[in-house]
Amino acid sequence: MTDKKSNAMWGGRFAAGPDAIMEAINASIGYDKRLAFQDITGSRAHAAMLAAQGIISDTDAQTIREGLLTVLSEIESGNFEFSTALEDIHMNVEARLKEIVGEPAGRLHTARSRNDQVATDFKLWTRDQMDAVVMGLEALINALLDQAEAGADWVMPGFTHLQTAQPVTWGHHMMAYVEMLGRDMSRFKDARARMNENPLGSAALAGTGFPIDRHMTAEALGFDRPTANSLDAVADRDFALEFLSCASITAMHLSRFAEELVIWSSAQFRFVTLSDRFSTGSSIMPQKKNPDAAELIRAKVGRIMGAMVALFTVMKGLPLAYSKDMQEDKEQVFDAADNLMLAVAAMTGMVSDMTANVDSLRAAAASGFSTATDLADWLVREAGLPFRDAHHVTGALVALAESKGCDLPDLSLDEMKSAHESITDGVYTVLTVENSVASRTSYGGTAPTQVRAQIARWREVLK
Amino acid sequence: MTDKKSNAMWGGRFAAGPDAIMEAINASIGYDKRLAFQDITGSRAHAAMLAAQGIISDTDAQTIREGLLTVLSEIESGNFEFSTALEDIHMNVEARLKEIVGEPAGRLHTARSRNDQVATDFKLWTRDQMDAVVMGLEALINALLDQAEAGADWVMPGFTHLQTAQPVTWGHHMMAYVEMLGRDMSRFKDARARMNENPLGSAALAGTGFPIDRHMTAEALGFDRPTANSLDAVADRDFALEFLSCASITAMHLSRFAEELVIWSSAQFRFVTLSDRFSTGSSIMPQKKNPDAAELIRAKVGRIMGAMVALFTVMKGLPLAYSKDMQEDKEQVFDAADNLMLAVAAMTGMVSDMTANVDSLRAAAASGFSTATDLADWLVREAGLPFRDAHHVTGALVALAESKGCDLPDLSLDEMKSAHESITDGVYTVLTVENSVASRTSYGGTAPTQVRAQIARWREVLK
Amino acid sequence: MTDKKSNAMWGGRFAAGPDAIMEAINASIGYDKRLAFQDITGSRAHAAMLAAQGIISDTDAQTIREGLLTVLSEIESGNFEFSTALEDIHMNVEARLKEIVGEPAGRLHTARSRNDQVATDFKLWTRDQMDAVVMGLEALINALLDQAEAGADWVMPGFTHLQTAQPVTWGHHMMAYVEMLGRDMSRFKDARARMNENPLGSAALAGTGFPIDRHMTAEALGFDRPTANSLDAVADRDFALEFLSCASITAMHLSRFAEELVIWSSAQFRFVTLSDRFSTGSSIMPQKKNPDAAELIRAKVGRIMGAMVALFTVMKGLPLAYSKDMQEDKEQVFDAADNLMLAVAAMTGMVSDMTANVDSLRAAAASGFSTATDLADWLVREAGLPFRDAHHVTGALVALAESKGCDLPDLSLDEMKSAHESITDGVYTVLTVENSVASRTSYGGTAPTQVRAQIARWREVLK
Amino acid sequence: MTDKKSNAMWGGRFAAGPDAIMEAINASIGYDKRLAFQDITGSRAHAAMLAAQGIISDTDAQTIREGLLTVLSEIESGNFEFSTALEDIHMNVEARLKEIVGEPAGRLHTARSRNDQVATDFKLWTRDQMDAVVMGLEALINALLDQAEAGADWVMPGFTHLQTAQPVTWGHHMMAYVEMLGRDMSRFKDARARMNENPLGSAALAGTGFPIDRHMTAEALGFDRPTANSLDAVADRDFALEFLSCASITAMHLSRFAEELVIWSSAQFRFVTLSDRFSTGSSIMPQKKNPDAAELIRAKVGRIMGAMVALFTVMKGLPLAYSKDMQEDKEQVFDAADNLMLAVAAMTGMVSDMTANVDSLRAAAASGFSTATDLADWLVREAGLPFRDAHHVTGALVALAESKGCDLPDLSLDEMKSAHESITDGVYTVLTVENSVASRTSYGGTAPTQVRAQIARWREVLK
Repeated sequence: MTDKKSNAMWGGRFAAGPDAIMEAINASIGYDKRLAFQDITGSRAHAAMLAAQGIISDTDAQTIREGLLTVLSEIESGNFEFSTALEDIHMNVEARLKEIVGEPAGRLHTARSRNDQVATDFKLWTRDQMDAVVMGLEALINALLDQAEAGADWVMPGFTHLQTAQPVTWGHHMMAYVEMLGRDMSRFKDARARMNENPLGSAALAGTGFPIDRHMTAEALGFDRPTANSLDAVADRDFALEFLSCASITAMHLSRFAEELVIWSSAQFRFVTLSDRFSTGSSIMPQKKNPDAAELIRAKVGRIMGAMVALFTVMKGLPLAYSKDMQEDKEQVFDAADNLMLAVAAMTGMVSDMTANVDSLRAAAASGFSTATDLADWLVREAGLPFRDAHHVTGALVALAESKGCDLPDLSLDEMKSAHESITDGVYTVLTVENSVASRTSYGGTAPTQVRAQIARWREVLK
Repeated sequence: MTDKKSNAMWGGRFAAGPDAIMEAINASIGYDKRLAFQDITGSRAHAAMLAAQGIISDTDAQTIREGLLTVLSEIESGNFEFSTALEDIHMNVEARLKEIVGEPAGRLHTARSRNDQVATDFKLWTRDQMDAVVMGLEALINALLDQAEAGADWVMPGFTHLQTAQPVTWGHHMMAYVEMLGRDMSRFKDARARMNENPLGSAALAGTGFPIDRHMTAEALGFDRPTANSLDAVADRDFALEFLSCASITAMHLSRFAEELVIWSSAQFRFVTLSDRFSTGSSIMPQKKNPDAAELIRAKVGRIMGAMVALFTVMKGLPLAYSKDMQEDKEQVFDAADNLMLAVAAMTGMVSDMTANVDSLRAAAASGFSTATDLADWLVREAGLPFRDAHHVTGALVALAESKGCDLPDLSLDEMKSAHESITDGVYTVLTVENSVASRTSYGGTAPTQVRAQIARWREVLK
Repeated sequence: MTDKKSNAMWGGRFAAGPDAIMEAINASIGYDKRLAFQDITGSRAHAAMLAAQGIISDTDAQTIREGLLTVLSEIESGNFEFSTALEDIHMNVEARLKEIVGEPAGRLHTARSRNDQVATDFKLWTRDQMDAVVMGLEALINALLDQAEAGADWVMPGFTHLQTAQPVTWGHHMMAYVEMLGRDMSRFKDARARMNENPLGSAALAGTGFPIDRHMTAEALGFDRPTANSLDAVADRDFALEFLSCASITAMHLSRFAEELVIWSSAQFRFVTLSDRFSTGSSIMPQKKNPDAAELIRAKVGRIMGAMVALFTVMKGLPLAYSKDMQEDKEQVFDAADNLMLAVAAMTGMVSDMTANVDSLRAAAASGFSTATDLADWLVREAGLPFRDAHHVTGALVALAESKGCDLPDLSLDEMKSAHESITDGVYTVLTVENSVASRTSYGGTAPTQVRAQIARWREVLK
Repeated sequence: MTDKKSNAMWGGRFAAGPDAIMEAINASIGYDKRLAFQDITGSRAHAAMLAAQGIISDTDAQTIREGLLTVLSEIESGNFEFSTALEDIHMNVEARLKEIVGEPAGRLHTARSRNDQVATDFKLWTRDQMDAVVMGLEALINALLDQAEAGADWVMPGFTHLQTAQPVTWGHHMMAYVEMLGRDMSRFKDARARMNENPLGSAALAGTGFPIDRHMTAEALGFDRPTANSLDAVADRDFALEFLSCASITAMHLSRFAEELVIWSSAQFRFVTLSDRFSTGSSIMPQKKNPDAAELIRAKVGRIMGAMVALFTVMKGLPLAYSKDMQEDKEQVFDAADNLMLAVAAMTGMVSDMTANVDSLRAAAASGFSTATDLADWLVREAGLPFRDAHHVTGALVALAESKGCDLPDLSLDEMKSAHESITDGVYTVLTVENSVASRTSYGGTAPTQVRAQIARWREVLK
């Protein structure tokens, strides 16, 4: 069975013949039609500029610009028939324009080429995505701020190595992700500013002899300025790589939170209950709530980083200026952008919907001698011990408590003094998890006051 | 403009609401419908086994098996309506089966789960691809053997560092790729043999208490044996990773040949003329023939390796057994397989169609003192010099020729003797490129006799 | 401060001057000295063959072969002074040989070049690593078999999505990794067989006119046969890529187990206690045992896959035959091999030392209605319900139990019958976790009998 | 032989025993000693702050700060004995400090932990590298500006698909890389600004109750402000990932230029002559100059991107806060930084030293009807044809010239007119390569005037 099947598949490919194979590998219209809006916007700006510079007539420009709007509305309404024989979005649009407006269509391609046109289209599209990601991250940050505010003083275990280290607050933990996502936003903004230069008018690779005004099209398209080297302008895909690397870092952050949510919603942790909407159940085990959305979000970093690796590898060692290899750029960025947006949206929904199990969190925080560091710090502060010595005294007391099967606050003052005579009654105040977190008031620390200050700062930033 | 646009995009995503977001991230039917044939084949084998073991009745099994054929024909004819609400191919098929045959459909899922079902489906699909790639590689090897045979004694420069080193034959160069692709074939075959174990019957993860016969379904589906551990069987995606790594190595080989074709078809090299079918021209510069297919093939290694990186990253650190992250496996393998097949087909077409420019090749081979090594070897062989000394004598003679602006064979015997007195007339026979390549008769060497022997060996292997 | 510092660093680099920069980027002796043993072994085989074929005299061959042993002993004893000016291991060895034996040293390089020499050396080294990894994996498998045997019937939760799904046995879980590592072994063995062809005698790229016997050196070096194409032989690094991809899959498997060990040793799970030797403690929190080794093992897949990506990218698009880019191959393979071996050794130690907390495992297995599937299967088997219907009845009973705050075995027979009248007393036998796992006797299932059969099979395989 | 060898290797590893294995996998001192300067700088700032805040005495602080200088000078002079038993640089330094100053050393670790300490050290180190890379890029840009200035009007072929498209200037081509490297500089600067926040004082993960002043240490260490969340501060490796992704983009740019240099220095192109210093010769073929440095630079993108992939994969899915996996961060960044710096330095040297072969460049530029676009543009401009029509007329003329075996300027006016009657004598002025490039005066175009303007702008920017 297998052989026949493979034969058929393979035979099909070959039977199609070389022309079909070439069309399959060469044509990009199957995916670059997503650039239709950008392509038409760019062409309209180009036509207006050509007229303003006297390169084509005002009438021609007007005809072209209106014709392009017609093409756009055909595409947006789904009534446009894309042709693979016309290879790409640029030729599909221009051919249709010619059908609609006739001869003036042939003047549109003056002083440009497909090389600068595709660079312009793809930059406009990517820039829109950068803006969209920033908005998505803002929404996710807001969801986290709400969670942080609600639980600014809920106590939970702070982990290192997935072992309880010290008590922290729920709000503090949420705010850690706000910081990460805040850096992500700033990274996308920097990338956007860096790439916001207009390639249009670079023509095939050498610029043009027509008296074009590249600053005018730059302004019309929201670019800050024209690119300064036409060879570079058509050979550059830095903006795509930078989008992918920003996206990979963001996706990595999401994978960390997703991992925590998967672990936290296990029967053994029970730190959090995810909503039904972002879980899948089982009719046979109604208590089972699989954190599918969290798992899928966790996986996205692979897909997005894979896209980045793909494009880096494609670009490696390409001579200037344009090489056809670069046509592999778009699908990677499209796929990464779609999946990043989806992951951010799903995470936003999941964070908004989830419920912290406050009692489980507190109970876990209070176990495992989690305030041992507070005891050591007390010895330094109140008894004047060097930290390394305080550390040893604390170790002895924890060992004593463990041997007695009790926790640190359960030791008597005499037992405390047996480890170091300068210990007083005052020590007990630092041994509760509430006091522990309340005391961590260093800038950026886990104390509820600190957490609330950071929430306020972020509310201000995002206003 | 940009902001409104992004807003719309993003707003659209959010306006859709959490349920739509969850459906978008969770449902796999959009791509796993490619597994329809495998899913139905697997279910038919399962039903037959259940009846043979007395777990369901023969009548039910018969009804199910026929119903599944109906579903398959609906899908193959394009008359099947896939439902996203039903999430995946398994539920889509089963739901339709229920509509067609009623109650017996409910008995099909006995002693299995979606976990072993999807592992089975995906393995069957990947196995078919492995077979198809092997066939494709065979076709490409045959095209290379034809080229090698035609040019078994055409002389061309052998490069290291893209600098002429020694003359080689066109046939020898073609056969280097035959060796690479031969290893690729063997790699896919090993991978196929390793993965050819039947996961069906592993159920959710623990196996089942029903008296199933996993050897029977294994045989029906062309597997060599059942998998030996049910936890591993549903958690394993090694076969996908191994497919991707074999595919990446093959794609890397293709990228090297593609790079050579791009360089060889430059105006400066003119070693080869690609056919119009695998190039794109320019109406304005008719002599310009862009090697688009070669460039696109060169790029595919990025895409395929990116898919591999994606899946490795997804699988990293996943606890047993099934986690939803693993749903990200299929799109990567589908995309890599499609693109590998396309690249192999395009390369096969391009190799079949291309024309070596025999004169350019020979001229390039004869320049640059390419037979200097032959001179050194002659000194070792005929004059008994240690190789390192022969090397120095040769260096002196090349320097002399260069200073005179001539090539090695143009030096007089006296000039030759000035560098080393034991040089005789006989030396001139080794200084032509034809004699040079003819002399390299060591096993695997570039001599036409050796090349023809290897061609014959490969013709036999592929018979 | 920063600026001065950077200045110094950078200035240092530049002050060194272009020659120092070139030496720094070009010389490989800093790392390829690890190939000394292989280089000398290869040269000794080459010298013996040259004599056997009458290309050099027996006396010269004998002198060379003894001289090379002297060089080797100098290197192994640490008394060899490596010179960066001599660039690589080949020139360092040959230069020292010349000092020791004089003129005959100059005859050693007859009929070979550095291109086939380095390919031979690196293949020999990589082949040794493949053998070593296989031995390491065997040791790890043995450690897992011991754990599996000890706990063939310890019950633990089987997870999907990190949610309890069905009870499984500890032995079964251990054996899942045995299957993975078994595939890893077979993958390394296949790779070894594929690469085991002798490049020596391919010379620079074209073969040689000397009457060498490549089969003789192949046999002397343990290769199965000579490579069949000299261009390919010096341009091929498939064996390195295949080593890296096999290593990446193995490392991925280790990362999954490592992740489980990290989670299992958390305070919330307490499934396993790692030994002190493979953990790090805290003098302040004596109960805290950080699973450092597990975390480091989990990370290694990143490093090893990174090495693979590096080499794939280096090889992308390289024209034949040798290019200097390929010098980047060795450090990647060295680092990956070292880290893989270390990870396998550490995992072997950790597995041998760890203690399963049998009571915690059983308690976790029995919670969460983990035998609901057994109930459904009982309904199919004993009451003849279609599986999909049995599934619904079970759902109702689990819901009832949950609402009563009890587990499934705690429901009365009347309550059972309220969901489906055909339920009898017999149902209770399938609701204990012990009976659940004992019943899963399908091939590869979790039943202790099945697990023991697989242990026995593996003991036989590894004997 | 092989088996014994492997056995020895593997046996050696195992014979070493579990403790040695754990030490090998766990200790970081082998590489993190590179952080010695940063570690001591951080500790000195911390001690000063502790005293300023009254947490330790001024005397103790003074003692500690002087002791640390002693330790630093021991390390810098090579007289420090690093101990693997002390695991890392932090413990090595502190232990030695204790030997030197005694009891006060125990007070240094107050209000901090290794988690914030290593984050601080590694950030300081990475920040220095960012500065160093920026300086290195500046040097490379300057070398390119010199080349561009010298050859602002040397004509060469502008390629797309490695096929001659239009004439460009040498200066223009050089300036394309200046633009790329300029973006690289800006990317590193953005990354530096984003990461320049002080983690010190975040303690283990929760902050501290000591009244520390994190702004003071921030200022002392050149940070812009303290980090705002202590959990994030110790769990964050964004700065390392961002360094690696900036480095990968830079390395990709270098790989493109390196590829061009390899192709340009082939015998077939002869566009450029590399200096002996950055090539390797062959004593046997003195004319052969292998572009080793260019090839090695081309390869570095693989290594650096591999490091990035490694760290992304390590970070994927790590729960907060610190996990030991993160210890894998440093070697990747160290190796990538070293190799990037080396590649930039080597490229700078190579660019400074290389000689353009002006005649070859011009000859290549003038072949292949490279001014066909100029002819088409002339028809639009002077004869008023729509561009698409002008394109067709030009195609006809090129075909005519090709059939006659001549170039475009060799066609008579009558022949010109045969294709389109409106063609006049004036057309001949646009058909020379010099006039072609001179006419491309659009902003960023290849005209020498434009190139010189960009050179001037960059000279200003870098002043």
